[in-house]
Amino acid sequence: MFRTAELGQKVSKNEFNQREPLLRQALLEAQANLRVNSKFPVIIVFAGVDGGGKGETVNILNEWMDPRWLITRAYDEPSDEERDRPEYWRFWRDLPANGHIGLFLSSWYSQPILRRVYEKENEATFDDRLDRILAFEKALADDGALILKFWMHLSRDAQKQRLKKLEKDPLTSWRVTQQDWDHWHIYDRFETAAERTIMRTSTGTAPWTIVEGLDSNYRSLTVGGIVLKEINRHLEEARKKSLLLQELEAQQQSGKPVLQAAEAENPENVGDALATEPGPPPGTTILSTLDMSLHLTKADYKKQLQKCQARLNLLHREALKKKISTILLFEGPDAAGKGGAIRRITAALDARHYQVIPIAAPTDEERAHHYLWRFWRHLSRAGRINIFDRSWYGRVLVERVEGFASEAEWKRAFAEINEFEEQMTEHGLLLLKYWVHITKEEQLERFKAREQTPHKRWKLTEEDWRNREKWDDYEHAVNDIVEHTSTYNAPWVLVEGNDKRFSRIKVLTTFCDRLEAMLSAKK
Amino acid sequence: MFRTAELGQKVSKNEFNQREPLLRQALLEAQANLRVNSKFPVIIVFAGVDGGGKGETVNILNEWMDPRWLITRAYDEPSDEERDRPEYWRFWRDLPANGHIGLFLSSWYSQPILRRVYEKENEATFDDRLDRILAFEKALADDGALILKFWMHLSRDAQKQRLKKLEKDPLTSWRVTQQDWDHWHIYDRFETAAERTIMRTSTGTAPWTIVEGLDSNYRSLTVGGIVLKEINRHLEEARKKSLLLQELEAQQQSGKPVLQAAEAENPENVGDALATEPGPPPGTTILSTLDMSLHLTKADYKKQLQKCQARLNLLHREALKKKISTILLFEGPDAAGKGGAIRRITAALDARHYQVIPIAAPTDEERAHHYLWRFWRHLSRAGRINIFDRSWYGRVLVERVEGFASEAEWKRAFAEINEFEEQMTEHGLLLLKYWVHITKEEQLERFKAREQTPHKRWKLTEEDWRNREKWDDYEHAVNDIVEHTSTYNAPWVLVEGNDKRFSRIKVLTTFCDRLEAMLSAKK
Repeated sequence: MFRTAELGQKVSKNEFNQREPLLRQALLEAQANLRVNSKFPVIIVFAGVDGGGKGETVNILNEWMDPRWLITRAYDEPSDEERDRPEYWRFWRDLPANGHIGLFLSSWYSQPILRRVYEKENEATFDDRLDRILAFEKALADDGALILKFWMHLSRDAQKQRLKKLEKDPLTSWRVTQQDWDHWHIYDRFETAAERTIMRTSTGTAPWTIVEGLDSNYRSLTVGGIVLKEINRHLEEARKKSLLLQELEAQQQSGKPVLQAAEAENPENVGDALATEPGPPPGTTILSTLDMSLHLTKADYKKQLQKCQARLNLLHREALKKKISTILLFEGPDAAGKGGAIRRITAALDARHYQVIPIAAPTDEERAHHYLWRFWRHLSRAGRINIFDRSWYGRVLVERVEGFASEAEWKRAFAEINEFEEQMTEHGLLLLKYWVHITKEEQLERFKAREQTPHKRWKLTEEDWRNREKWDDYEHAVNDIVEHTSTYNAPWVLVEGNDKRFSRIKVLTTFCDRLEAMLSAKK
Repeated sequence: MFRTAELGQKVSKNEFNQREPLLRQALLEAQANLRVNSKFPVIIVFAGVDGGGKGETVNILNEWMDPRWLITRAYDEPSDEERDRPEYWRFWRDLPANGHIGLFLSSWYSQPILRRVYEKENEATFDDRLDRILAFEKALADDGALILKFWMHLSRDAQKQRLKKLEKDPLTSWRVTQQDWDHWHIYDRFETAAERTIMRTSTGTAPWTIVEGLDSNYRSLTVGGIVLKEINRHLEEARKKSLLLQELEAQQQSGKPVLQAAEAENPENVGDALATEPGPPPGTTILSTLDMSLHLTKADYKKQLQKCQARLNLLHREALKKKISTILLFEGPDAAGKGGAIRRITAALDARHYQVIPIAAPTDEERAHHYLWRFWRHLSRAGRINIFDRSWYGRVLVERVEGFASEAEWKRAFAEINEFEEQMTEHGLLLLKYWVHITKEEQLERFKAREQTPHKRWKLTEEDWRNREKWDDYEHAVNDIVEHTSTYNAPWVLVEGNDKRFSRIKVLTTFCDRLEAMLSAKK
């Protein structure tokens, strides 16, 4: 989930100096519009890793905006006064009024996460607390509030470096406490709790944005840009809504339809303002961080393949005995070598124990059900291996990119998929998700080769060429997929696939490693 | 929550015979339309008390409708096959296709409730299971499914009688098992689990309807009527949606607006069909079951008042020591005697320890926040008593009836209020909610008396007379309030208020009893 925020994104001083004044100006304008409209409050929550720059970001927003209509709140252990009332009393008390912005540090998320990390409360109780948060934020959002939540992330190593750097500088050393180091030592526990928090509380009306916290320029511009974009979007929606209401009233009074909505919806000045609006800086996707030059010699490959397949065969016999089922799924660009990798797995197995399920267009019966129904049907009995060649991720890949699914449909699919996969892993299934990647150039080579090889020509269709044109959209979609659905129990394995030999061995090795880990946990 | 389903509602044989053929015909038609449209499935869940008529209702629906497009499923302990897969595999497998209806007995709700009642799982785990249900139903509803859930209720006594009656008849005695009686003995535990289930899983797109299960005629017509109404409503919505989509397309192709939506929205035949549609039989409200003739003599009143006030004073001193706060709230028709009852309470208390909060129109500052904000502010420190003269229930009373809140707003307010009150009671507060009731005739008497008493004349406004005209709407709203928000920990006390003396003593006594119970639980 956090790997998309470990890409080392940076904004140079030069670029920052160019963007900052524009952003500040636009933020001040948005804030003024918010005041004039005064129909809803803005609630901005900051959470994340110590040293991820939560405090600094709040400071910079205070600097950039008009402090008269901005409140900042942070919460420590509850006071006497606060303990006398239900837990949320202090949060309700501090809510910004319509037209105001509230910045919340160590907010309602802080205590639940800490209690979980220190194992004072079990997972079910943790979920109860997250439910309370959901209900709280839903009530506010239903009432019109704009809620934005930023999770500032640093990798384990980056956090260590950051804390050391802060400690070294006499001006910032006070920022680092023993507690920060204590927390660093249990980084993994924080990450697990954070993952669950984000999965359960990222909703359409109160979404989390994970922000890479390493570079302060990137961080500030990203948060500022998103705040700006969202305030303007929310104002625009409120404006449209009230226009529609006015019209309806006019219609009722005059008795005939007044049709200015379409016209009023996008007066030129608003459109222009949005077009030139200083948004967050453009980022890179996780796929661009893969080292696509990785490869194996033929000799190495042969040796390793034999070893891996023998290992897999042994491991799977044990899995059968222990009734551990496996689900593998493969996604990736056309011609990435998914089929080849799958065949290297099945070659090591007994045909009675696995099933390869190629996912093409749904049948009539499947179309008459929820899109997940056809995947639920294919869950096999204990101990078996199911291999999906393409999968339920079609919803957030091809259906998203080609527009077969509406935005609402593919956006809510992330939560539906996480729920589906959680049910599998809770049941004790091993679930591994492979993205076999190739570069655009490599794909072109392979397409050309296919055209020239008679027995492979059938594999290449018009559609493959069309998909190629949307390469960047697909890359962007994959980045979102990894951000939303790569979890501790159901991780995505990104496979560098330009060299087929390397790719196949990586697929086999990661499968064996995970299966072995699972088997030894069940001893 | 269940008191509105213990009113002894009945439908005579005669009335049933009149309504049944109409309903059957309409259901068959709705089912045929559903088939033709074939855009969504209908999922109907039955749950509730043993002997509440779940099975019989499913049988009658099977009799009334076309069995070819109807599936019925009930779930026992999972089979070997089922245990090999995640828990929900069997539910997914059985989902009806678009255009079909599925009737589910002992469904996904059954195991979570049983595990909770037998205390195999704690409340937090129970909540986790309900979350899973929420996600499951949300995914289906988002995809277009119509989901209806019926909770068949019987009071503890009614259930006993029903089981005995079934046992006596040789034709039905097989229906009653030892397990039914075992469950009857832990009726209260079932009720608590049921209350939590309904509170947490009744959503806008998958609502629960609580049905009084005593009389089979009433039960069948109610369920059948609601199923009919909802299928037709859902079909109509689907129709409108697809018309709008068609128009949008036409608009995009022709480049100019095609405006048939308003016209197409309600062709005459549909409007007519809905108007004469055989819906559920009209019911009575819970207020009509109060014995409004209850009264006390002056001598009795004086004696009891003194005793109650002395008792309250002692109890509250103990509550102060133990830091138990109390929140009382009073609702009721104008001139019902809320103020008088409140003064009889405060007379027994030290002025430093209580606060009476009259709720009138909100201030500017309050209006600029969520409607619950102003009630959160008024939660006082530990040990104190807060008395709200009118309350947050204004949202689902006056704001609902007068149209100040939209339907979406007041409907979601039930969940918001339950969440608010749960936070209070979880914190250890005593929360009691009084509905002080008078009859319409008694109100008229009191209004007239006020007009003639100079020092009371100011109390009577134009608004009071206007509210009187909506008496039935208010009664209906109160019934909904009790159904949705009277819970074990935050019950509504319905007070027969035609006799002020009786009413004041009932208010005081119930307060003392609850406070005493809470104090002794905290020993």
